[in-house]
Amino acid sequence: MGKKLKIAVDIMGGDFAPDEIVKGAAQAAKDLGVDIILVGTKSALEKSVATFSTVRLPVQQVEATEMIKDGEEPAFAVMRKPNSSVAVAARLVKSGDADAMVSAGSTGACMVAAFQHVGVLSGIERPMAGGAFLGLAPKTVVLDLGANVGCQPYHLVDFAVAGTVFVRTFMGVENPTVGLLNVGAEEGKGNPQAKEAFGLLKNSGLNFIGNVEGTDIPLGKANVIVCDGFVGNILVKFCESLGKSVSNWLGRELKDKMNREDLEKVTSKLYGLLSPGVAMGGGPMWGVDGVVAIAHGSSRAPQIAGTIKQAKIAVESGFVGQLKAELKKVQDKRESAGTQ
Amino acid sequence: MGKKLKIAVDIMGGDFAPDEIVKGAAQAAKDLGVDIILVGTKSALEKSVATFSTVRLPVQQVEATEMIKDGEEPAFAVMRKPNSSVAVAARLVKSGDADAMVSAGSTGACMVAAFQHVGVLSGIERPMAGGAFLGLAPKTVVLDLGANVGCQPYHLVDFAVAGTVFVRTFMGVENPTVGLLNVGAEEGKGNPQAKEAFGLLKNSGLNFIGNVEGTDIPLGKANVIVCDGFVGNILVKFCESLGKSVSNWLGRELKDKMNREDLEKVTSKLYGLLSPGVAMGGGPMWGVDGVVAIAHGSSRAPQIAGTIKQAKIAVESGFVGQLKAELKKVQDKRESAGTQ
Repeated sequence: MGKKLKIAVDIMGGDFAPDEIVKGAAQAAKDLGVDIILVGTKSALEKSVATFSTVRLPVQQVEATEMIKDGEEPAFAVMRKPNSSVAVAARLVKSGDADAMVSAGSTGACMVAAFQHVGVLSGIERPMAGGAFLGLAPKTVVLDLGANVGCQPYHLVDFAVAGTVFVRTFMGVENPTVGLLNVGAEEGKGNPQAKEAFGLLKNSGLNFIGNVEGTDIPLGKANVIVCDGFVGNILVKFCESLGKSVSNWLGRELKDKMNREDLEKVTSKLYGLLSPGVAMGGGPMWGVDGVVAIAHGSSRAPQIAGTIKQAKIAVESGFVGQLKAELKKVQDKRESAGTQ
Repeated sequence: MGKKLKIAVDIMGGDFAPDEIVKGAAQAAKDLGVDIILVGTKSALEKSVATFSTVRLPVQQVEATEMIKDGEEPAFAVMRKPNSSVAVAARLVKSGDADAMVSAGSTGACMVAAFQHVGVLSGIERPMAGGAFLGLAPKTVVLDLGANVGCQPYHLVDFAVAGTVFVRTFMGVENPTVGLLNVGAEEGKGNPQAKEAFGLLKNSGLNFIGNVEGTDIPLGKANVIVCDGFVGNILVKFCESLGKSVSNWLGRELKDKMNREDLEKVTSKLYGLLSPGVAMGGGPMWGVDGVVAIAHGSSRAPQIAGTIKQAKIAVESGFVGQLKAELKKVQDKRESAGTQ
């Protein structure tokens, strides 16, 4: 396997930080054979030594001297606090001291840290937010999910490229299909953005299968479904909330019809099928010039270990390099066509 | 009750036409004390006499000499065929020979028939598509659901007015709250359309509570949630498809854990909670200068009778007149502010 990978783990972000984060990192160190660099405040780091000693593994520690407090708007707090754990971890990636970083902190905060301290790929304005969004359609990613609101049509092509590389790398689909989220199946449907994006996608060299409708998302009709972040954000939040409401409803509905254990299994499975966060687990941000992987805020140790595994796959498969190369192809095409 | 209302019923539209449509109409004639005018082809009308004689009620019949065939694009077919049943029924409303019409045909076809033969309210460009969209949030309507793609910000105010009048009339909420579907809760979030609509809604005199997010839809955070038809259409189709996928999944998951009858009850309830069509039942189109009520394509007799009841409520409550008056208010305001 050659040199061991080094993964920087932000132990301050997430609902169960730092304990569950550290436990997950220790688990990953043991199972995946990666070196871990814990990043956190002095007192959080001190507490974490004991956890690592239980797996009898060495661990590096890097102190973050600033803290984002409850009630601060996380994205802005990170801008003001370059020594917060998420920013420090990002700089370890930039400097090459870490091969990747993992955080369960707020997506906005991670995005700002990645943007400021790692940088984005050439031609990309902001990191993209995307991922496998429904347990019901496990080989389908949707993007953008809210990082990019008010896109130009060519942004949708960038999303399609990123999704294609992601699905190929992480889902083992060789030639992922790409669909444009729209209000009808036929070409010529939709708003001006969708109409123009249709033409660009058709000529992108990607495996574009045309428009897909809302109906097609749960059916996984395409591997990559692209949309403006305005639509994606509403959709993903709607779906997550629906997952909660529906599994609560089912719990009440079947209370007297099943034993409690079976019922809990079913409702939590149902929640998992619909909750984007749970389905997505954790994965690398797209469009960042390095591997910055985000775990869901509600992650416990196994999800943290899972996200570290995703980060490892991203590094070893050359996800960022591939994405860079594929984006360059469509950007060159765009420039030579004079579309931008 | 004064004069009996006359409802024109298109017996050619819907998955179970004409039999279930006629049965539903006969049921409504009996239960609601309305006069029914059946509109259909000669052969369909002939078959329907027997159904009406079982309830011992007289029924008027109007022949439609053209038929929309399977495989024709319904909206365009209606334009080409002014003597199709849905168009004939619409003209009965326009001429005053009927107080309202009901159809379970395609929404597109009904919309075209309404637009061409009944007309839209002053200042409205197209009928709007909206309704109670989730069984989980029974006092929340969302619009536009796809009739209006690519809106101007002021269209969202029209939607808010229509939704307000609808919720007041049909859901008994005196002062319905209005929310703008957006990607964040704070003012200033979203795309340019949403940002401008926020300001217009704030000054509209409606009970505007600000932005609502995707999360808030299943929670019914506002009675009226407005969005561009592009977003609404994707959302509503996504939700309907999700309802099917999830209830099928649940059926498989619980197959061995419950008896078949209980299981069918639960899965069909779940489907109803998520399926917009089922939740919406039937109701009047909004923005049309007369009562044109659409029933879901899969309607059977009880749903047809239910839609006729909605049409009756719309007529008796003066839904169209109220909508006209309320729209005029915001339009006058808009003109005096010079926003349009």
